[in-house]
Amino acid sequence: MRVGVADTTFARVNMGAHAIDELRKHASVAIERYTVPGIKDLPVACKKLLEERRCDIVIALGMPGGKEKDRICAHEASQGLMLAQLMTNRHIIEVFVHEDEAESDAELAWLAERRAREHAQNAVRLMLRPRDLEREAGTGQRQGFADAGPARQ
Amino acid sequence: MRVGVADTTFARVNMGAHAIDELRKHASVAIERYTVPGIKDLPVACKKLLEERRCDIVIALGMPGGKEKDRICAHEASQGLMLAQLMTNRHIIEVFVHEDEAESDAELAWLAERRAREHAQNAVRLMLRPRDLEREAGTGQRQGFADAGPARQ
Amino acid sequence: MRVGVADTTFARVNMGAHAIDELRKHASVAIERYTVPGIKDLPVACKKLLEERRCDIVIALGMPGGKEKDRICAHEASQGLMLAQLMTNRHIIEVFVHEDEAESDAELAWLAERRAREHAQNAVRLMLRPRDLEREAGTGQRQGFADAGPARQ
Amino acid sequence: MRVGVADTTFARVNMGAHAIDELRKHASVAIERYTVPGIKDLPVACKKLLEERRCDIVIALGMPGGKEKDRICAHEASQGLMLAQLMTNRHIIEVFVHEDEAESDAELAWLAERRAREHAQNAVRLMLRPRDLEREAGTGQRQGFADAGPARQ
Amino acid sequence: MRVGVADTTFARVNMGAHAIDELRKHASVAIERYTVPGIKDLPVACKKLLEERRCDIVIALGMPGGKEKDRICAHEASQGLMLAQLMTNRHIIEVFVHEDEAESDAELAWLAERRAREHAQNAVRLMLRPRDLEREAGTGQRQGFADAGPARQ
Repeated sequence: MRVGVADTTFARVNMGAHAIDELRKHASVAIERYTVPGIKDLPVACKKLLEERRCDIVIALGMPGGKEKDRICAHEASQGLMLAQLMTNRHIIEVFVHEDEAESDAELAWLAERRAREHAQNAVRLMLRPRDLEREAGTGQRQGFADAGPARQ
Repeated sequence: MRVGVADTTFARVNMGAHAIDELRKHASVAIERYTVPGIKDLPVACKKLLEERRCDIVIALGMPGGKEKDRICAHEASQGLMLAQLMTNRHIIEVFVHEDEAESDAELAWLAERRAREHAQNAVRLMLRPRDLEREAGTGQRQGFADAGPARQ
Repeated sequence: MRVGVADTTFARVNMGAHAIDELRKHASVAIERYTVPGIKDLPVACKKLLEERRCDIVIALGMPGGKEKDRICAHEASQGLMLAQLMTNRHIIEVFVHEDEAESDAELAWLAERRAREHAQNAVRLMLRPRDLEREAGTGQRQGFADAGPARQ
Repeated sequence: MRVGVADTTFARVNMGAHAIDELRKHASVAIERYTVPGIKDLPVACKKLLEERRCDIVIALGMPGGKEKDRICAHEASQGLMLAQLMTNRHIIEVFVHEDEAESDAELAWLAERRAREHAQNAVRLMLRPRDLEREAGTGQRQGFADAGPARQ
Repeated sequence: MRVGVADTTFARVNMGAHAIDELRKHASVAIERYTVPGIKDLPVACKKLLEERRCDIVIALGMPGGKEKDRICAHEASQGLMLAQLMTNRHIIEVFVHEDEAESDAELAWLAERRAREHAQNAVRLMLRPRDLEREAGTGQRQGFADAGPARQ
């Protein structure tokens, strides 16, 4: 298995390094890293990882700022990641941490690391252990903050 | 007939299981299930179900959260589902239940089950009994809550 | 000429029937009808009418609800109809009546019928009498409510 | 050079006629006109002008209304024009005048004519005199109202 | 290496000239310039630079106005730039300066120049020195205003 890790110089946490560390704990995989300036550069980077560097799946990590303009940027980047997946028939796991999700730099660093690691686990499960995901269907899983858990009638 | 059922670990109700149960009541169909982490992973999963696992139609089930960011996520997922349909010329029935549509966990679980089941019936009708849908054209059908009914002059 | 008519069971008025009735008054055309559950199912239905059932043009009729979520749904459906046209180089006439455009059920039924009929006439003109449209260029035509008329210097 | 001119019956000013008149003043060009009901019908009309009627460039003229629904319509039309350009590698000059940009019918008619004419000149420059555009790079040109001019340090 | 520089006559600063000057300082590259009227004309210009004038990468420079309509324009242009990248598997570096990011003409001119130059450096790094970007992953780099720097736990 070959996993692409695309990240940005804009982010304030080295989310790519956390994702790579976690991937190596859970599977024996080849890793291709691709760092771009900002989140809007991620979609084509991911597509190149899938098509030119033959990755089976990509993790795209970014940290949109907290202003309205940044939210629109993140929306455009997400639409690009969506389209890149549909053009390649491969998963791209989007791991975005919005700067305003955290109340301090320390919490931001903690959240970005934890979300990157949990999504790296998801990438491994999507590729190697799809039954593990099926067993957790509808159970309110979250990445970063605590799980929401299932709703019962 | 081969029906794909794509759902998420993020949802707080096992909507995929309800859809599968309902499909089996109404038609003799082969079912392919594909569970992904969140709703933004659904579009490529659906496209893979249609193209790689040869489904004739897919039901895509998800439960967006109640925050503004979640609404944008749901919008991006919906755009992806739309595009996946146009790229494959196959229907993908979107079954999203927004967490803030219900006032309690119990109502959420009830709504998610009922909407999943009613849309599973729609999938069967789209594939096997299109005349049934034509007979109900313009009659204000709803999935989940009560039908609105026709407006008369 | 072969005209596709795509409509929904969600709509509260049988707009498809009105469109078909009007088409038959104005031209000798073959009609293919395709009823789907909701407006987000319309784009792929229209594309199938154009590509698999060989229609020359399609009329897509729907009635979005009045809530914010419904407006986003309508936006997604419209984007899908746009894309379907660009993928096929064929016109799809979108006939949407938003529930909140009318103040009563009676007005809603009146508006939906009138808009469906006027757009059915537009479909005929686009296919058979393009000069009629050119003669009305910039004259403030509306479908449903009264025309706005031209603005003069 | 072959220029397509796409316009609508919805607009309240015959913007297509103004554009054609201006084109004829500035270049010896063949003109293909295509009038459609509304702005959402423009993208496929433009694509057909480029692909089926062999235009080198198209001017797309429309006049969105002043309500929120109209703004969304205009956004969808613009996205379609963007996509049509990327699918054909040809320019489509979008000339939209929003009804609420003017304070009276007279100003609306004046603005629509002036913007149509200035963009017709832009179309000619894009095709025949690209150096003229390069000379004006970053100089705050506007179409319709007065130019903003350059900002200086 | 062949770099495309696409800019607009609408912008109030000659951002294209600044980008070209900076590119020449950092690498020996061939430059193709393409000036269009406004930001919505940029995506197809960039695609033509990549496909018809054989550029390896493009820098797209623009200056959206400060009104709501301008923000929507910028969003549409950004979506087009995203799609053009995915259709060509090449990077297009978007360098947009919103008029309302600066409080005076002088600051606007300063910001536009600085952002154009810093992104020109990014283009060179993406093509020739990808390791330099990887070394800065997650360090809070910004273009124009001061860097945000890394967040620490």
